[in-house]
Amino acid sequence: MISPHACVDPAARIGAGCQIAAGAVIGPEVLLGDNVRVGPGALLTGPCCIGNDSTVGAGCILDAGADTTGGELVIETDVQLLAGATIATRVTVARGARIMAGTVVLRSVPPHAIVAGNPAQITGYTLSADRPEAASPATTREREIGAYPTTVRGVTLHRFPRILDLRGNLTVGEFDRSVPFEPKRYFMVFGVPNAEVRGEHAHRTCKQFLICVHGSCSVVADDGVNREEFLLDDAATGLYLPALTWGVQYKYSRDAVLLVFASEYYDSAEYIRDYAEFLALRQ
Amino acid sequence: MISPHACVDPAARIGAGCQIAAGAVIGPEVLLGDNVRVGPGALLTGPCCIGNDSTVGAGCILDAGADTTGGELVIETDVQLLAGATIATRVTVARGARIMAGTVVLRSVPPHAIVAGNPAQITGYTLSADRPEAASPATTREREIGAYPTTVRGVTLHRFPRILDLRGNLTVGEFDRSVPFEPKRYFMVFGVPNAEVRGEHAHRTCKQFLICVHGSCSVVADDGVNREEFLLDDAATGLYLPALTWGVQYKYSRDAVLLVFASEYYDSAEYIRDYAEFLALRQ
Amino acid sequence: MISPHACVDPAARIGAGCQIAAGAVIGPEVLLGDNVRVGPGALLTGPCCIGNDSTVGAGCILDAGADTTGGELVIETDVQLLAGATIATRVTVARGARIMAGTVVLRSVPPHAIVAGNPAQITGYTLSADRPEAASPATTREREIGAYPTTVRGVTLHRFPRILDLRGNLTVGEFDRSVPFEPKRYFMVFGVPNAEVRGEHAHRTCKQFLICVHGSCSVVADDGVNREEFLLDDAATGLYLPALTWGVQYKYSRDAVLLVFASEYYDSAEYIRDYAEFLALRQ
Amino acid sequence: MISPHACVDPAARIGAGCQIAAGAVIGPEVLLGDNVRVGPGALLTGPCCIGNDSTVGAGCILDAGADTTGGELVIETDVQLLAGATIATRVTVARGARIMAGTVVLRSVPPHAIVAGNPAQITGYTLSADRPEAASPATTREREIGAYPTTVRGVTLHRFPRILDLRGNLTVGEFDRSVPFEPKRYFMVFGVPNAEVRGEHAHRTCKQFLICVHGSCSVVADDGVNREEFLLDDAATGLYLPALTWGVQYKYSRDAVLLVFASEYYDSAEYIRDYAEFLALRQ
Amino acid sequence: MISPHACVDPAARIGAGCQIAAGAVIGPEVLLGDNVRVGPGALLTGPCCIGNDSTVGAGCILDAGADTTGGELVIETDVQLLAGATIATRVTVARGARIMAGTVVLRSVPPHAIVAGNPAQITGYTLSADRPEAASPATTREREIGAYPTTVRGVTLHRFPRILDLRGNLTVGEFDRSVPFEPKRYFMVFGVPNAEVRGEHAHRTCKQFLICVHGSCSVVADDGVNREEFLLDDAATGLYLPALTWGVQYKYSRDAVLLVFASEYYDSAEYIRDYAEFLALRQ
Amino acid sequence: MISPHACVDPAARIGAGCQIAAGAVIGPEVLLGDNVRVGPGALLTGPCCIGNDSTVGAGCILDAGADTTGGELVIETDVQLLAGATIATRVTVARGARIMAGTVVLRSVPPHAIVAGNPAQITGYTLSADRPEAASPATTREREIGAYPTTVRGVTLHRFPRILDLRGNLTVGEFDRSVPFEPKRYFMVFGVPNAEVRGEHAHRTCKQFLICVHGSCSVVADDGVNREEFLLDDAATGLYLPALTWGVQYKYSRDAVLLVFASEYYDSAEYIRDYAEFLALRQ
Repeated sequence: MISPHACVDPAARIGAGCQIAAGAVIGPEVLLGDNVRVGPGALLTGPCCIGNDSTVGAGCILDAGADTTGGELVIETDVQLLAGATIATRVTVARGARIMAGTVVLRSVPPHAIVAGNPAQITGYTLSADRPEAASPATTREREIGAYPTTVRGVTLHRFPRILDLRGNLTVGEFDRSVPFEPKRYFMVFGVPNAEVRGEHAHRTCKQFLICVHGSCSVVADDGVNREEFLLDDAATGLYLPALTWGVQYKYSRDAVLLVFASEYYDSAEYIRDYAEFLALRQ
Repeated sequence: MISPHACVDPAARIGAGCQIAAGAVIGPEVLLGDNVRVGPGALLTGPCCIGNDSTVGAGCILDAGADTTGGELVIETDVQLLAGATIATRVTVARGARIMAGTVVLRSVPPHAIVAGNPAQITGYTLSADRPEAASPATTREREIGAYPTTVRGVTLHRFPRILDLRGNLTVGEFDRSVPFEPKRYFMVFGVPNAEVRGEHAHRTCKQFLICVHGSCSVVADDGVNREEFLLDDAATGLYLPALTWGVQYKYSRDAVLLVFASEYYDSAEYIRDYAEFLALRQ
Repeated sequence: MISPHACVDPAARIGAGCQIAAGAVIGPEVLLGDNVRVGPGALLTGPCCIGNDSTVGAGCILDAGADTTGGELVIETDVQLLAGATIATRVTVARGARIMAGTVVLRSVPPHAIVAGNPAQITGYTLSADRPEAASPATTREREIGAYPTTVRGVTLHRFPRILDLRGNLTVGEFDRSVPFEPKRYFMVFGVPNAEVRGEHAHRTCKQFLICVHGSCSVVADDGVNREEFLLDDAATGLYLPALTWGVQYKYSRDAVLLVFASEYYDSAEYIRDYAEFLALRQ
Repeated sequence: MISPHACVDPAARIGAGCQIAAGAVIGPEVLLGDNVRVGPGALLTGPCCIGNDSTVGAGCILDAGADTTGGELVIETDVQLLAGATIATRVTVARGARIMAGTVVLRSVPPHAIVAGNPAQITGYTLSADRPEAASPATTREREIGAYPTTVRGVTLHRFPRILDLRGNLTVGEFDRSVPFEPKRYFMVFGVPNAEVRGEHAHRTCKQFLICVHGSCSVVADDGVNREEFLLDDAATGLYLPALTWGVQYKYSRDAVLLVFASEYYDSAEYIRDYAEFLALRQ
Repeated sequence: MISPHACVDPAARIGAGCQIAAGAVIGPEVLLGDNVRVGPGALLTGPCCIGNDSTVGAGCILDAGADTTGGELVIETDVQLLAGATIATRVTVARGARIMAGTVVLRSVPPHAIVAGNPAQITGYTLSADRPEAASPATTREREIGAYPTTVRGVTLHRFPRILDLRGNLTVGEFDRSVPFEPKRYFMVFGVPNAEVRGEHAHRTCKQFLICVHGSCSVVADDGVNREEFLLDDAATGLYLPALTWGVQYKYSRDAVLLVFASEYYDSAEYIRDYAEFLALRQ
Repeated sequence: MISPHACVDPAARIGAGCQIAAGAVIGPEVLLGDNVRVGPGALLTGPCCIGNDSTVGAGCILDAGADTTGGELVIETDVQLLAGATIATRVTVARGARIMAGTVVLRSVPPHAIVAGNPAQITGYTLSADRPEAASPATTREREIGAYPTTVRGVTLHRFPRILDLRGNLTVGEFDRSVPFEPKRYFMVFGVPNAEVRGEHAHRTCKQFLICVHGSCSVVADDGVNREEFLLDDAATGLYLPALTWGVQYKYSRDAVLLVFASEYYDSAEYIRDYAEFLALRQ
């Protein structure tokens, strides 16, 4: 359904079930998947490629013609661009992302991320719609010591003893007891600029256990069906990610130190860095 | 006067004396009051409702269709949206507000406020056009101790003694003498996030006396005809607001403590929180 | 009882019941009251005057001879100088004070003060020995809103509502209701250097109500028999001092603002600045 | 080449070789030079004047009609406005500037500046395309003491001794030896708000020598053909600007102090503040 | 050898080889071990007990008579009190400690500690006299990744990879590879007041591995013969303490987080908290 | 005049007119100049050497015997040690210095310095007794632009223009006009630890001009007869030191940058580093 007041170049390729509103401009090097909706006055100058079921809001601008850095401007499936968003660089907006109204996107956007502002910053992730009564770090902090399930399959939150003392505080964990495995390796992440995402991948066989020992950071855990975000801001709280869990770490405070125990020595072949591959393995 | 190059849905309701420029798109659920001017390329996808004498600049976007939070997108009377402003949420922009060019509005805008940026922040208020020679805190600071009139009816600025001493400083006020009334009550506001507006209302019978005892904040006082903004940043300066004065407090510094003396005990029925009601009472 | 190994100038005047230990040196212009105890090796070069029941610890030095500013070195009654203290200026150490070990005293020490360090700083006051279960700001903070008695006669601690809000916090008090009187006057003290004592007096008829609206300070209240120290560090806590209460304010944080409501207009004749006079009036 | 889907007012003046894309709106008081390209959906409401060889990207808005402050909205030659930029004030964008996607411009933009954000801030300068192996402060810091040429004609970077010492550090320069001239005058710039540009001009006869003695700032030097940017952040590095060099100073850190030695006493007639005049003199 | 100008109470018990200088005062409840040297003018009012080979410098005051808290004032063997130190509390100064000139000691002093100031703070430990060319964190930081011996038997310093990245930094360790054992347990110490000593003990069988993951702290490791102090201030440096190593942790920065891996689950019987017992086990 | 109750070693050498008070102990390796006064209970264990007209207050301890670093403990002429000072290291206390009560001296003390605390810090200099109405930086700041004489011969304070501007501030000086000479050289001092003295010397022929361009520092200027201390804390204030002026720079703030213009190229032979030599040249 293309409005008679839209201006669509004959060379553009338009999928089945697309809707193009009045005042929209579609250039010659534009490829729309199926069921894409383009709002009034949206300018898809191109070149660009938009996946199935995505939405381009009123007055959005997709115009990578002046960007000579190479690559393509790709909007994957199920993406929402709200009114007035501008993308003028050859970046990829991954599946399920949401670009808020008036956002100016300068870098690629990861799966399910929500971005806003000029320039765009990740402000959150689109989480599972239905979240039954599950543990979160905040509620866990007041619970007893132990492990609590979450909405994400296999992911557990762990509460450790925290011994307060005028001479200094102490927290302690025991491997194979309060921590679910014996570690082969630890690593620490620190000195992360505030808004930066660090780490966005799953592991084939490696289990991980995360403790934010100073400052705070947020971890999004995703089993392919459910996603949940955990704010880690306490040395006595740990988050267990079993193998085949997609994990995102972000919103580091400037002084954050994230300690990670891993059940395996490092093996680069063991990382899954492509979300589509992760979804395939999960099913 | 509707440009032949504009695209107006027949279901839209357009008031008398409206002007709609070339390239503008007006959706079916849009209601324009009288004398509304819509600039070239403005996208009023709707649903929205725009009051008399308001202006929507070139390329502005009013598109609340994707916002499912309920309510309505309302632009009241005498509002100015400058070029390129975007509103994609169901908020109210109150009478006399001015939305600067390129602003992305995410929250409701109070009467006479000026907002700018992405996301929008209040940067000021549209003040009285003609400001005769009146007292301001800065000029008052160098005057003698006493009370000074302002451009707003009945509002006075008060200069108290400030005794500087190597052992610490002192300021003092006397009720029924240097403060115009005997207080029944004090309250203090503190811990206000920087850009936040706190308080926007008038009182039917209660008089108030405001002193910023630490840090700084700004107070806009409005008698329905004249408005003036006062920066309070000194423990020896007070601002008297008689009954039936509309007051706005904002631009709190992080460390601000605002001390308010009130001439009456608290009575919620005594507050006027609607600006239209205030204007009616004032006349 | 003078040790034969002490060296006491015949011109010195020694009261009844004094004890002077081995190695001590007592100069000609020294006047000891009754029951003064002078420890081993103490050097009372003088000129100085030590009141009844005071103690000069081992190795202390009282040597005002090099101070040409005039006045006298006076140690009042019931003073304790612990081992190794040095006083080389013509100051007064007032009754009940305690000079901690190793202190070097450069300024006069007020009644019941405890001083330590080099140079001496007031670190506290010698409080009532027996403190029955009474309110303190810390315990009050967790109690319900209302007024609580203290160990000091007539002095009450007041807990006000504290309304926390994402948009900023609020606290409120009502005169003649939650505050025990109607104020005639307020004053504020601010910009006080950290260790400085500010205010040390009683009022004949004026009642006071103290709130530390920013930062923190300590108030010692004294009814002539009992003394108690209150740390005020919260805008929702007030301290009521009835007439004829000796009050000391000190330990101001750099950013402290102390708000005081007074039941009377200012009258200098109404102040009692001499502790002995205060004690007489109290009895 | 004007698209049949563009809407161009007959009163507009359009230069030779201009291209105007679909959906663009050109108002009556618009003047386009030669070879100007206007992208799809761009709204040139006017009044405005655009110089030869400039580009206005998709969805850009040039709408100064609501700005009553006087002056003109002028886009000079060789300017690039990327997609979605908004200019609603009567400012000048000088030759060679680049306005990044989504930028909201509120103030005039100097020659060759790159601006981005809402509101626009200068983020850099379009520098010389070919930069042969030349000195920069960073590489100079590790070189030996001495003077090094740069890509800009006559401009040299100078490395001074830096004597580190536990008791404090020292750096030293000698006039007519390590500094190329004898100064008649020094001046210091300090307290500069962070993003602010300070100084943008050339001198007819005066030579300058710049040292950032605390904090850091950036200097762009331009001989009319080549431009290079120098970060000065070290008291032992100096930058020599001969006469007839266009210099820009910006990106001051909050604590920056820039010390400048000048070879002549102050003479306002000696300043060239117009870039076009500078280019003429250079040739 | 007692000076005839000293004043020694006949009730005092004086060991063989003691030297008591002119002007000293020795009270009745004083017990001096062998070879104690007491300097001129020192006042050992007592009660106190001083171990063999200790030295009390000129003008020191040991006067626990006014301390009514019970216990004894004990100076153990090989202690040095330099001139002018004052101890007026019933504390223990443990073997090998050194009390610097002018110090006022208020708390017990641990073995080999060096204390200074008023009040006394631990400023260091008397380390091994001969320190052959060994690793320290500072020199290790510039060495290659690996493990380095120290002067203390079995204690090793470990340098881990530190991967610097604009997106944040990373360090990593592998158990049974770069860390000498597989941990059964971790614990973290944090929120330690600055000058506070935390932990002063050895383990019978447990090995420990210490990493200061944020801020800094110092660790003294002692094999009974050699002692060395290690400043840990870098997340990529670890310190290995084998079983039967005496360890002291102190000088925590306010923001320090010390992560410890332990080779055994917790067992209180496994701790040695008495230094004398440790020395016995070591031999 | 030696008190019969003092204990003076026959090997000590005592100058003419010395006074030694009761209880004092004078060791064998002590050399007192003429007119030295030693207070009661002072312990001059030695070895030490005290210059003419110096005073050692009651209870002071001079005991360099435990310092095995070599050198001598020398107290020069006209030095005052107030009561309770302790010196246990082989340092030199230079002429005219004053050691305040209770100080523990660990490092050499420069001429006319006043030191206090434990450990001793330089707190000032003994300045000229009579200070006629002269310029100081504080009073100068409010005067007009120009040069003002001081109490020190030839030394002038200079007030420069300070142009305040929202875009940043500016100050300017002209050589041979507002600065009294043409510089051959500049140097800058920065990164000085707070309490450290840096520079203490005079120049034979070189004139200097000092501006503290960031932070603050203090300069003591001395013509051999008068001394005055200047706090430089403002980039628009300069201090001129003619040749043959003894200058001391200290009390640097951590962020201080001191800019010095010198009238001559560097010549080490031109420095006078010995105060006695300076005094001789001055006369």
